[in-house]
Amino acid sequence: MAAKARMLIFLGDGMAGRPLPELDGRTTLEATDTPSFDRVASEGACGMLNPISPGVAAGSDTAHMAILGYEPYEYYRGRGPFEAKGVGLEVNAGDVAFRCNFATVENGEVLENRAVIDRRAGRIKERTDELRQTINQQIPEIDGVKVLFKESVEHRCALVLRGEGLDEHITDVDPHAEEPTDYHECKPLPGYEEDEAAKRTARIVNQFVERSRKALNGHPLNQAREADDLKPANIILPRGVGTAVELEPFAERYKLSGALIVEVDLVRGLGLYLGMDVVTCEGATGGDDTDELAIAASVVSTFEDHDFVLANIKAPDLGGHDGNVEQKIAAIQKVDRALGYVLDNMDFDRAVVILAADHATPISVRDHSGDPVPAAFFGYGVTPDDVQSYGERACAQGYLGHFCGSDVMSILGNYAGAGEKYGA
Amino acid sequence: MAAKARMLIFLGDGMAGRPLPELDGRTTLEATDTPSFDRVASEGACGMLNPISPGVAAGSDTAHMAILGYEPYEYYRGRGPFEAKGVGLEVNAGDVAFRCNFATVENGEVLENRAVIDRRAGRIKERTDELRQTINQQIPEIDGVKVLFKESVEHRCALVLRGEGLDEHITDVDPHAEEPTDYHECKPLPGYEEDEAAKRTARIVNQFVERSRKALNGHPLNQAREADDLKPANIILPRGVGTAVELEPFAERYKLSGALIVEVDLVRGLGLYLGMDVVTCEGATGGDDTDELAIAASVVSTFEDHDFVLANIKAPDLGGHDGNVEQKIAAIQKVDRALGYVLDNMDFDRAVVILAADHATPISVRDHSGDPVPAAFFGYGVTPDDVQSYGERACAQGYLGHFCGSDVMSILGNYAGAGEKYGA
Repeated sequence: MAAKARMLIFLGDGMAGRPLPELDGRTTLEATDTPSFDRVASEGACGMLNPISPGVAAGSDTAHMAILGYEPYEYYRGRGPFEAKGVGLEVNAGDVAFRCNFATVENGEVLENRAVIDRRAGRIKERTDELRQTINQQIPEIDGVKVLFKESVEHRCALVLRGEGLDEHITDVDPHAEEPTDYHECKPLPGYEEDEAAKRTARIVNQFVERSRKALNGHPLNQAREADDLKPANIILPRGVGTAVELEPFAERYKLSGALIVEVDLVRGLGLYLGMDVVTCEGATGGDDTDELAIAASVVSTFEDHDFVLANIKAPDLGGHDGNVEQKIAAIQKVDRALGYVLDNMDFDRAVVILAADHATPISVRDHSGDPVPAAFFGYGVTPDDVQSYGERACAQGYLGHFCGSDVMSILGNYAGAGEKYGA
Repeated sequence: MAAKARMLIFLGDGMAGRPLPELDGRTTLEATDTPSFDRVASEGACGMLNPISPGVAAGSDTAHMAILGYEPYEYYRGRGPFEAKGVGLEVNAGDVAFRCNFATVENGEVLENRAVIDRRAGRIKERTDELRQTINQQIPEIDGVKVLFKESVEHRCALVLRGEGLDEHITDVDPHAEEPTDYHECKPLPGYEEDEAAKRTARIVNQFVERSRKALNGHPLNQAREADDLKPANIILPRGVGTAVELEPFAERYKLSGALIVEVDLVRGLGLYLGMDVVTCEGATGGDDTDELAIAASVVSTFEDHDFVLANIKAPDLGGHDGNVEQKIAAIQKVDRALGYVLDNMDFDRAVVILAADHATPISVRDHSGDPVPAAFFGYGVTPDDVQSYGERACAQGYLGHFCGSDVMSILGNYAGAGEKYGA
C-alpha cells in the first residue's frame, strides 16, 4: 500500500535524562524552554519509548536498528560491519569487521615492544591513503582469509576479514588507554576459548596487527612525520568486532524510499548497510556547534524525493556525556529550533513525525542509560491526547503508553497509512 | 484449577477509531451515548489493547487468534484453513487450503480465454451442491495430491489440498476485480520462485482451475442457468491460501468449555479449528440489521453449559469500512444495548467480562488500522480504577495500561481464578 503521508523520525541524541537537584528536581528536557517540542506533544499523541526494552541502555547502533525495525537481539552481532560500511568498504554477510585506529607504538621496529604511546597516532590527518595502499599491497590475505582495509577521517580506519570459519567472539586489540599501555593480544572471549572459529579469527587478527607493524615501520610517510617531530602511524589497532548479518534492505522491507540525516558515523554506516540514502548536510558537525537549521532544511528538502527520513542531532548526547547541564540545555534548544523549522516548512496534513531520543544520556550518569524516553507523534492520522508538554513525566501520561523501539516503524506506518494488514 | 467465574469476551467488531472533525474531535465511540459501556468502564479496570502489537493492523482472523491466546506470529499461515473449516471441510495439519468463488469466465469452452466477467457467477444461490459433486467426482486428486472441495453459501466455496511437498507461498488466482479481468496464473510469491514446494503447489492450483473449467463447462446446471439468462458458474477461483498448522484445541489448552457467538465466517472457522462450540444465533445477520438482543440472549443461554464465551457483533466494522458516521454510531449503540442485556441477565459476582474491539476500523481510514483499542474488564475479581467512560482516550488512563491481544486470556483467567500459577 502506498503511504498517504510522509514519515519523519526526529531524534535528539541522548536527549532524555533524570531529575537534577540543581534544576529543582526537573530533568534537562523538563527544564528547557522547548516551544516546538511542546507544540508537537500538545497537538499529538504521546507515550514512552523503551529503545530496546525497559531498563536496557542502548548503544547508538542498537537503538537505531530497533527504531528502524530491525530487532537487535535478533540481528545485532557487533558494530564492526556498520563501521566498515560507513568507511566505504564492501561488507558481505558472514564477513567479520572491525573499527580500527592508526596508532603509535614505541620503538616500532622492535616487535616485542607493545607499548602504545598514542592510540591516535598524533591525531594524524593527512595522507593516510598512502598507508592504506601499502597495507592493501602487503596484506591482501592471511591464511586464506581475504583482508580488506580502508582509512576514514583522521586516525580512523576499518578492516574486513572475509573467509570461512570466522567468528566475532574475540577481544579488542586496542587497549583503550590514553597513557602508554601495551596493546592486547586478540583472544577468544571467555566461553569461546575452545571455539575453533574464534581461535582462528583471533590468530588472524594478531597476524594482521604484526604485519601492519612491519608494513608501516619505516613507511615514507612515517619517516616524514618523524622528521617533523610528529608521531608515526606505525600500527593498526582493531576493536569493535562484529559479524555481518543479512539484513533486508529498508526499501524492500517497507516499500519506502528512505534517507538518514545523522551526525554519527556508526549510524550512517547502519543506514548504508540497510541500503538507505545517507544525506550529507553541510554544517552538520556532530558537535555542539552544529548548524541545526541546516539540518532542518536538509530534512525538508530530502522529502522532495523520499517518503521517509530519520534525522538525529548529536549535540544533547555530548552534554550528557560531559555531565554539563548548560551544554545539554543549549543542545536541546538547538533540537527544538530545528524541529520548529521543520514544522514551519512542511505540511503535516501530509506528514507524520515522531519526536524522541534514541536513548537517555542523563547528566547524573554521564553515559547512556536504560530509562524510557518521551515520544510524541504529530501530524497525519494521529489521535491527540491531553499531554501538554514534551518531557519524561508528561509523556508518560500519554495515549500510547509505553512501547519499544521496534514498534516505532509500525506505529508511524499505521498513522501514515503505510502499514499492511496482518491477516484477513 | 476450576474457574471461580465465567468468562466473557465481548467485542464490537472494529468499534474503535480516530477523532473526527465532524464530531468535534471525538471518535465515534467517544461521541456515542453508551450507558452500558460506561458502566463497565466506570465500575471496572480499563486499559488499551493492541490486538497484535503497537501499530500493527490486525485482520479478523489474526486478531481473534491473538485474543484467544494463539500468538499469530507463531501460528498464522494464512486464512485458508479457517475458511475451509468454516465451510465444513476436514482440515489436517499440513494441508494447504483456499477460499474460492464460483465465477463466470467468458466463453468457458475456450481454455485460452481467461476473462472473468463475474467473479461471483451472478451471485449464484442454489444447487451449487451439484457442482461440488461433479468437481469431487472428476478431480479427486492431482499429481498425487488429494483434492477436497465443498460449496458454502452463494458463490462461496473452499478447497483443501492434502499431500507431501505443498507450500502456501503462492499468489491468488482470483483477480479481485469487479470489471472483466483475466484471472491470474498461480505463481510462487517473490522470494519463493525457486522453492520446489511453492512451484509444485502453484502448478497443482493451476491444474485445479483448468480442470474445474472442463468439469463445469456444459454442466447441466450451467446449461439451465444459461437458458434462464443467468451467468454460468463455469470456473472456480481460489484465493486466501493458507497452510494448516497444529493448534492445541481450546478446551485442552484452557481446560474450559468454550463457545463462540460470532457473525464472521472466517472467525467461526477459527473457532471450529480450535474445537470450540460455534453457536448459531437466529437473528444474527452479520449486517447492520442484526438482532443484537438475540445475540445477547444467546450469550446468556450459552453460559448455561459453557465456562467461556467470545461474542462479536459485526455491525460497527461495516460503518467504519463504509466511512459512515451515523451508521457506525447506530451500530455501536446496538453493541451497547446487547451488553446492557447481558449485564441485566448475568450475575457478575460470578462472571467477568472484557469489553473491547478486535481492532479499530476508523471512519477516516475505512479499513482496519493499527491503533490501540479501549478495553474494560468488569465483574468478578476486577480492581476498579478511576476511568469513568469507555472510549479511546479515557481507557488510556486506566489501571491496566497497554497490553496485547495475546495477554487477554491470561488477564481474564487471572480475574476468574482460572489461571494456573507459573512456577512454584
